[in-house]
Amino acid sequence: MALYRKLLLAIDFASDSEMLCWHASEMAEIHGASLSLVHVVEPVVTDSAFDTLPPIPVDFDDIHIQQARNQLEQLRQRYGIPEENIFLEIGVTKNEILRVAKEQSVDLLLLGSHGRHGIELLLGSTTNAVLHHALCDVLAIHLERH
Amino acid sequence: MALYRKLLLAIDFASDSEMLCWHASEMAEIHGASLSLVHVVEPVVTDSAFDTLPPIPVDFDDIHIQQARNQLEQLRQRYGIPEENIFLEIGVTKNEILRVAKEQSVDLLLLGSHGRHGIELLLGSTTNAVLHHALCDVLAIHLERH
Repeated sequence: MALYRKLLLAIDFASDSEMLCWHASEMAEIHGASLSLVHVVEPVVTDSAFDTLPPIPVDFDDIHIQQARNQLEQLRQRYGIPEENIFLEIGVTKNEILRVAKEQSVDLLLLGSHGRHGIELLLGSTTNAVLHHALCDVLAIHLERH
Repeated sequence: MALYRKLLLAIDFASDSEMLCWHASEMAEIHGASLSLVHVVEPVVTDSAFDTLPPIPVDFDDIHIQQARNQLEQLRQRYGIPEENIFLEIGVTKNEILRVAKEQSVDLLLLGSHGRHGIELLLGSTTNAVLHHALCDVLAIHLERH
């Protein structure tokens, strides 16, 4: 019986996405599983109470989304991931990761961790939240070990 | 290149150790890795400030240790784990798990999780602490999924 059939790697381009993607890709191959990628762009929240702050360019989110799309496409091509397995979402990172994992019936969710302090820092408090709320197995990949 | 060579499963006999051990054993086989088990008995702390409490039998720790030894031995035999790969430790659970993982140069530490609330409950706050401080990859196995 296969342990895992559907792997989902959550990537934050601030950390070592290349290594994480390589690791997840190897895991998928070893387990005979499919691999999907998810990246979440958190929209910039503007608050009229802080209208003395410099204005944020209206296309700030669009720029972020386009950059993320390009980076995902590079990883997708390098690791031979089908287009339908790429999820670029907009929203609260932890919620979107958990939603995609649930909707896609993922059985192993992979995220990066920096160990001692990193798990809090990476993706904000997302790794922690995902670990607490995921309905599937979660693999925290230690970035500094690799 | 093998992703993992040395797996260590931390077990708390309060949760489904049999399923966890099966899962870890399958992981070890798929990855061509060795499997070790660690279980930690936390000693009962007596405090003279609470001397009105009923006295704890002096051999309380010994009974726990013997029970744990028997349970580990059953799992060891069932999954063909070498005797030298069994670690029965006495101390603070998170510290002992992390110490064994480090000393044995483990590259994947496996623990159980119950999802929403379970990760805090399982082994007290141990899973959380281990996730934050481990120097290796950590796989949280979702007990209710299986």
